Amino acid sequence: MIRVGIIGATGYAGSELVRILMGHREAEIKWYGSRSYIDQKYADVYRNMFCIVDAVCMDDNMEALSKEVDVIFTATPQGLCASLVNEEILSRVKIVDLSADFRIKDVAVYEQWYGITHKSPQFIDEAVYGLCELNREKIRTARLLANPGCYTTCSILTAYPLIKEGLIEPDTLIIDAKSGTSGAGRGAKLPNLFCEVNENMKAYGVATHRHTPEIEEQLGYAAGRPLTVSFTPHLVPMNRGILVTEYASLKKKEDGTLPTAKELRAAYEKYYDSERFVRLLPDGACPETKWVEGSNYVDIGFVVDERTNRVIMMGALDNLVKGAAGQAVQNMNLMFGLPEDTGLSMTPMFP
Amino acid sequence: MIRVGIIGATGYAGSELVRILMGHREAEIKWYGSRSYIDQKYADVYRNMFCIVDAVCMDDNMEALSKEVDVIFTATPQGLCASLVNEEILSRVKIVDLSADFRIKDVAVYEQWYGITHKSPQFIDEAVYGLCELNREKIRTARLLANPGCYTTCSILTAYPLIKEGLIEPDTLIIDAKSGTSGAGRGAKLPNLFCEVNENMKAYGVATHRHTPEIEEQLGYAAGRPLTVSFTPHLVPMNRGILVTEYASLKKKEDGTLPTAKELRAAYEKYYDSERFVRLLPDGACPETKWVEGSNYVDIGFVVDERTNRVIMMGALDNLVKGAAGQAVQNMNLMFGLPEDTGLSMTPMFP
Amino acid sequence: MIRVGIIGATGYAGSELVRILMGHREAEIKWYGSRSYIDQKYADVYRNMFCIVDAVCMDDNMEALSKEVDVIFTATPQGLCASLVNEEILSRVKIVDLSADFRIKDVAVYEQWYGITHKSPQFIDEAVYGLCELNREKIRTARLLANPGCYTTCSILTAYPLIKEGLIEPDTLIIDAKSGTSGAGRGAKLPNLFCEVNENMKAYGVATHRHTPEIEEQLGYAAGRPLTVSFTPHLVPMNRGILVTEYASLKKKEDGTLPTAKELRAAYEKYYDSERFVRLLPDGACPETKWVEGSNYVDIGFVVDERTNRVIMMGALDNLVKGAAGQAVQNMNLMFGLPEDTGLSMTPMFP
Amino acid sequence: MIRVGIIGATGYAGSELVRILMGHREAEIKWYGSRSYIDQKYADVYRNMFCIVDAVCMDDNMEALSKEVDVIFTATPQGLCASLVNEEILSRVKIVDLSADFRIKDVAVYEQWYGITHKSPQFIDEAVYGLCELNREKIRTARLLANPGCYTTCSILTAYPLIKEGLIEPDTLIIDAKSGTSGAGRGAKLPNLFCEVNENMKAYGVATHRHTPEIEEQLGYAAGRPLTVSFTPHLVPMNRGILVTEYASLKKKEDGTLPTAKELRAAYEKYYDSERFVRLLPDGACPETKWVEGSNYVDIGFVVDERTNRVIMMGALDNLVKGAAGQAVQNMNLMFGLPEDTGLSMTPMFP
Repeated sequence: MIRVGIIGATGYAGSELVRILMGHREAEIKWYGSRSYIDQKYADVYRNMFCIVDAVCMDDNMEALSKEVDVIFTATPQGLCASLVNEEILSRVKIVDLSADFRIKDVAVYEQWYGITHKSPQFIDEAVYGLCELNREKIRTARLLANPGCYTTCSILTAYPLIKEGLIEPDTLIIDAKSGTSGAGRGAKLPNLFCEVNENMKAYGVATHRHTPEIEEQLGYAAGRPLTVSFTPHLVPMNRGILVTEYASLKKKEDGTLPTAKELRAAYEKYYDSERFVRLLPDGACPETKWVEGSNYVDIGFVVDERTNRVIMMGALDNLVKGAAGQAVQNMNLMFGLPEDTGLSMTPMFP
Repeated sequence: MIRVGIIGATGYAGSELVRILMGHREAEIKWYGSRSYIDQKYADVYRNMFCIVDAVCMDDNMEALSKEVDVIFTATPQGLCASLVNEEILSRVKIVDLSADFRIKDVAVYEQWYGITHKSPQFIDEAVYGLCELNREKIRTARLLANPGCYTTCSILTAYPLIKEGLIEPDTLIIDAKSGTSGAGRGAKLPNLFCEVNENMKAYGVATHRHTPEIEEQLGYAAGRPLTVSFTPHLVPMNRGILVTEYASLKKKEDGTLPTAKELRAAYEKYYDSERFVRLLPDGACPETKWVEGSNYVDIGFVVDERTNRVIMMGALDNLVKGAAGQAVQNMNLMFGLPEDTGLSMTPMFP
Repeated sequence: MIRVGIIGATGYAGSELVRILMGHREAEIKWYGSRSYIDQKYADVYRNMFCIVDAVCMDDNMEALSKEVDVIFTATPQGLCASLVNEEILSRVKIVDLSADFRIKDVAVYEQWYGITHKSPQFIDEAVYGLCELNREKIRTARLLANPGCYTTCSILTAYPLIKEGLIEPDTLIIDAKSGTSGAGRGAKLPNLFCEVNENMKAYGVATHRHTPEIEEQLGYAAGRPLTVSFTPHLVPMNRGILVTEYASLKKKEDGTLPTAKELRAAYEKYYDSERFVRLLPDGACPETKWVEGSNYVDIGFVVDERTNRVIMMGALDNLVKGAAGQAVQNMNLMFGLPEDTGLSMTPMFP
Repeated sequence: MIRVGIIGATGYAGSELVRILMGHREAEIKWYGSRSYIDQKYADVYRNMFCIVDAVCMDDNMEALSKEVDVIFTATPQGLCASLVNEEILSRVKIVDLSADFRIKDVAVYEQWYGITHKSPQFIDEAVYGLCELNREKIRTARLLANPGCYTTCSILTAYPLIKEGLIEPDTLIIDAKSGTSGAGRGAKLPNLFCEVNENMKAYGVATHRHTPEIEEQLGYAAGRPLTVSFTPHLVPMNRGILVTEYASLKKKEDGTLPTAKELRAAYEKYYDSERFVRLLPDGACPETKWVEGSNYVDIGFVVDERTNRVIMMGALDNLVKGAAGQAVQNMNLMFGLPEDTGLSMTPMFP
């Protein structure tokens, strides 16, 4: 039985970790860390856990925690994990960090986009980027795991095979992303009030959103060279779900023709056919966020537009599951040698 | 392994049965019946089941079906189950009927409220009303199980202990119920369109809703005599969830005083303390539908109003789970001698 | 042209006053008071007012304000208006207070339910309760107008004719009320976040909500004696709208029979037939909040339940219009001798 | 007083025409045409109109209608207007067609995208495309007015100045559009049910949506040559509102530099500074659909992304107002010599 500690257990991602781990037969939560609710019953903060979780919230003490558990999930704001982690702790426990602290290999890029000084740059090299479908082998042996962002997971998986196989022009990639409001967290902020979000839609963070460099780094590895993308997130009046619509120009083959829909499908199949959590939809089907809600799936579809010689790629996931807690558990499973889908067999809930 | 057939697998209740049974280790669905989608892939009707359910939809042939499975769920409109069932079928399989056909013992009451002639009145006596918390022992040996309505389950469980213990005046009972829109089914009807329901709220079926006689019959058993209730359902712009707010006058005790909140709590605890799926909330807490979403729980709370000598009782459940498919599986578990919560350990999803 | 000042112009009720007054040909806003946003452009706080309102927000200085305008609306938390008003101010301007400070005639009742000391009890007697349909003549000459609460307006108007005419038993009255989330205000509080409200429903303030004594006082006048009601508010995942469902036992007439639906309708017609903003729906129609959204209407319907000898009354209004800002403007119109519906002819917006 | 007839008065666009014209002091609706509801009271179909509209629905008889009114609005499916119109009718009344029948100048393009044969191609040349901001002078004298589509209005106005001034590369234009569900109409179709749309988001009509050629034609006029765009609509769980996010590469100036944000703003101001219904937002502000709800405004913002040398343009409007009925009334005002904003001064409703 894996003993689990969570730092930041009362945010939406933290609480989703709790929900998922309640159904994981090989893991047991030993520490519900939440600086804001110390000594309060967890089930009083999340009443859905009434009669399910009996524990009270603890402080965010990674030092103490590292002596009691096998793995620590940090579901906390940027900078916290980097400020707490050290060699001693890493020698005792594995860490799955749901924040951005160890996602980006170039510390300057991190510090520029996040506007803070990185407190533990010495661990960046060691940290493994936890996008299981791309990095599975490295994840198995990682001590420090950088769990990808929600937008990032969806954006990368949707475009990866076509970039990797050289079927699209990398620098034409435009990602128009739409997210449910739980992605904004549980902080009591005016723009996240029901009446501000409901019956409303907007873009935000245009040309400046922090998930951009993370997408560029990972897709740059696929392309074999650096690339820049346009990434625009939008806020949608729903609780959960991310939908990305991605546009790219098809890349001429050596014979001067453009790749066909069949060739694009073959590329997707090459990378995803044996993936447990990636569902490549039939021709003509567009992903819908509700079809993956509550589950660890990513649904992907695409359409070739012969009028514009572009491909429109679409991906959908649940931002709190495959976009956060579910992927974190998938990573934990790999890191502890368990079947990758242990505790992750939730069927999507519809409606 | 219990072999399961579903008639009406493409309605919302039917699809929820599929979702729940996907996580049930002792049951396997052998027949996805849906007259409207015969020969179509089930996962094309419910794309959330893509890569999970590979079957195609079959006709609603109970005769054929009864030879291939151990239990049949009928998640169909009123009248269909009663028109299909016969002694031969019942000798072969158990039937869990999610429609109202066998819920009401007095066939005249059924025919009056539902406006149709009952096709199999000879089985009404035998049928067991499947509210597990009240009828557990009879359910274990039932061949024909009448699965309660969604409003009914919530309304009855919320008031039952106080009526049974004689703490409230039965005839003062008023039930104001609010339901998510999935309760209206998946039929393509104008009043259920997004734009008609969203940002809107209304009562409907005032003084005429068909769940009324079902509530009255069951609470009448608790009271030891017939009673009438005011029951008013409302449509709420959310997918899932039923909330009932029930009002009743406290009943004077023999010494002329009124029962206290402590005494009411003791009554609830007497009946529900060992119930796996009933959660009696702490003093002062009001149930919220989101706290039970996706799970088989009923959350119950109450407030004594000393100004009016009334108690306000509140109950919340997920209409598709404890209000339909979850309760149906709970009944199946009892009927087949399995632990009552097999396949029903879903943690509520929040947010 | 009536010169208008608003104290609390950046709350939802305040901003709705602005929206309505933009379409009022006899009024002009001279002062947008908002302590939280002093010196900021109003259109930066409410971007819907971009290119419409050019003013910046001012302090809540009632003294200064009273010298520049003809009427002051206070759309502020309880206690503020009472702490600012004095004889000198009242001699200069008319005041329409959207808070509860002057709604309840018995100061002890006010202080008990609101938990604060009333700062200007000397004006309570003079203040006129601004439910136009009941108090029209007094409103015309008022200096200090207590604008009714949102729940209150809907609850009272829905039951008033039947109580006034002695057709129901006053003490059996139970009011189950449902409100959109804008009723909770624009404060950045966790329970009002989108993800906490959406796909959720709950009761709150059970047996303790502050609108209760206000309802009881006004309906007590109608009954000719004090009465108590059960009043239960609920939070609904929609922006605007209040729906009340009210239950009462029919009162036997002298000949021992119960009043008929026709008699109840006659009572409603007696009071509302010439009312511009009350719409008595046809037999069998249940009010829906969306049918009045954005308008100053109250829609009322009722059903007689012969099984229980009760009447179920239903009322719907837009909590920010007839439940707050619209009614405030209706009162202003009366106080300044204008046609009562000036600026209030908004057609409900559907969908 | 302009006498108005509406064919298709019971669709969402038709009912919005009714709502807007109720507040138009120079127009009076004489004919509520609705084949589906002939002889039924209009207020029974749209209960928000109770006590406001007293008329019953009439047949869609354009011949008869043309003798009784001055202008006919056709808010009907594609093909109907073209099948009814003739020279005699056009000699008697002006026609504002809200369908696509006369929007596209090349009848072959129309027939290809819409899949129907055009019944009155002889009027296509004469018809004026009713995007007031671009075609104002021609509209004034039009007999037959082709009212633009909802997506189209938003897409064109958002990009027009930058294309017209040669500041972006026309063929790089990608339009990612998001629409509330009222855009799908009031037909009782499964995909538009509340439970299918709520908590869900999807793209649809990818690379095939019929508004594409309309956008290309109009923007082609601006560019001075034909162009193709990628246009992807999405369905959003809200009633009203369209948001477009448009991407284009900045076009190098003759001196080899790229246009600056200041230059882009100057281009927008050149075309929109004196436009009553276009609001160019301040730097850094992103349009939100809620800020224009219920009004005839289009809100436009843009961000220059120096990393990718692209501009991200954003536009928001209410699909039923500026995207349909409001623009139709704006066109009517121009055609009858009235001030362009008569009856269109609705302040956006928030929240």
